[in-house]
Amino acid sequence: MSTAQREWLDAQLRRARANPGQSVSEMRHGFEKMMNTLPVPDGIRVDEAPIGGRPALRVSSDTGASAGTLLYFHGGSHVVGSPRTALGLTANLVIRSGMSSISLDYRLAPEHPFPADVEDVVAAYRELLEMGQAAESIAFVGDSAGGGLAITGALAARDAGLPMPAALVAFSPGVDATRSGPSMVTKADVDPLLDRAELDRMSSLYVADHDRRNPLLSPAVTADLTGLPPLLVQVGTNEMLLDDARRLAVRASDAEVDVVLDITAKVPHVFQSFTGTLDEADEALDRAALFLRQRVRG
Amino acid sequence: MSTAQREWLDAQLRRARANPGQSVSEMRHGFEKMMNTLPVPDGIRVDEAPIGGRPALRVSSDTGASAGTLLYFHGGSHVVGSPRTALGLTANLVIRSGMSSISLDYRLAPEHPFPADVEDVVAAYRELLEMGQAAESIAFVGDSAGGGLAITGALAARDAGLPMPAALVAFSPGVDATRSGPSMVTKADVDPLLDRAELDRMSSLYVADHDRRNPLLSPAVTADLTGLPPLLVQVGTNEMLLDDARRLAVRASDAEVDVVLDITAKVPHVFQSFTGTLDEADEALDRAALFLRQRVRG
Repeated sequence: MSTAQREWLDAQLRRARANPGQSVSEMRHGFEKMMNTLPVPDGIRVDEAPIGGRPALRVSSDTGASAGTLLYFHGGSHVVGSPRTALGLTANLVIRSGMSSISLDYRLAPEHPFPADVEDVVAAYRELLEMGQAAESIAFVGDSAGGGLAITGALAARDAGLPMPAALVAFSPGVDATRSGPSMVTKADVDPLLDRAELDRMSSLYVADHDRRNPLLSPAVTADLTGLPPLLVQVGTNEMLLDDARRLAVRASDAEVDVVLDITAKVPHVFQSFTGTLDEADEALDRAALFLRQRVRG
Repeated sequence: MSTAQREWLDAQLRRARANPGQSVSEMRHGFEKMMNTLPVPDGIRVDEAPIGGRPALRVSSDTGASAGTLLYFHGGSHVVGSPRTALGLTANLVIRSGMSSISLDYRLAPEHPFPADVEDVVAAYRELLEMGQAAESIAFVGDSAGGGLAITGALAARDAGLPMPAALVAFSPGVDATRSGPSMVTKADVDPLLDRAELDRMSSLYVADHDRRNPLLSPAVTADLTGLPPLLVQVGTNEMLLDDARRLAVRASDAEVDVVLDITAKVPHVFQSFTGTLDEADEALDRAALFLRQRVRG
């Protein structure tokens, strides 16, 4: 079934692409509409739980069981999205891992360009620690731009002298604002979701007048990753961000970081959103859940 | 505890290194002696089970439960080792995966240089299929030179028109007889087990007068990996073969193969042998077992 599943999904995503020239407000609305079509599993409880001066959603099993905390960062190119748009993916990971999640509503560009969101991640993590939660019981997890934030947030926390969380999980992370990965070109046609011109436009809103080689904008290219906790990176081969993931993993292992680079062929950007539709999504999340259970102490 | 575990293991392995200038017979005896010190878990049954014209060991749970077959290839640089020397590792994977294993006593160099062992792998696999076992219920698994054989055996089976097994798992595989990986140099000092001169000597016995760029000698460098089944590669950063694994994974994903590259920092060649001593070994085998259960249909 899987080849048929992959082709069906590809066609769906091509239809859902943003129209060029939309305003930021239109893009935000369109993204929300698309992501709201994704299923949220049963058995989940969602509560408002502000942290570090920002709104956040606490996503947990309605049985109350929890053996650790996933500090989650949604995707959306640093410009669109919210904890609600990543709710299905977050909830699926909560159920599989047996942990609860705090999904952070970090500040977005263009109103708040880089490094506002990185600061929000550090502030939220610092407050969790100050509330008495052990670093060993926390993982940073995110998808797309949020996968990048899992990495850059951990780097910023390290540089601020905070203890490292137990693990990092990044789904299709954007970790190179210089866009120098070969897959930016070689995968442009097969990527059903991302469009280079749109990526560049969103990226300009986020980067503003900063140097794109800043390690917190392009960690896969310029960051010293030494001291990061064990890292899982999942990515598909039908996406322009493939080489963001591959270079991040190689660079992490060069820095003596435990790293799992988990590549699924012929699936799109953040394919883990499509549980129930795509077998590969369920299987990838099961591998991520095992990785988290091995690292996070509840 | 893990830093202490890693340092203890490093010291043990440096003491166990082969002495330069040993005869093939002395190397085989020394390897057997070292590997026999590794624990074999309880609850395992071992039977002689010749296949494809070669001796083999069937390694199974003594409860008889089995949901698939791991065709296993031991390590030893294509010159030393046997199913017995890999028994602990094979048995640990059998227990964790719920599958049984057939561990092949393939022919060794210098008596039988390349491609004798690749031929033995294909003959064993062909006989399994002819006995009525479904390709979907079989995985190729191996460590070190045997990890290389999992890859080259699958390539040779593909080229012979056989259906692909369900999955490939390679622990610290040797997949580049050209020895062109940067880690052959950068990791020479931190690798506690492998020695470049000894590696070259064993490799010469195996390669004989073949071109080292032959895809079945250097699949990470020259092979077309198209059509391989999902592949898991595990490797440590304290080994000269790190870049064999990293390049194999990148090349596999370029060929649209599902691939997981699983790198553990600061552990040696085939660290999965040290279950019970090194937490990372148990955790890595648990990840391998999940990968196998997701792919192999019993």
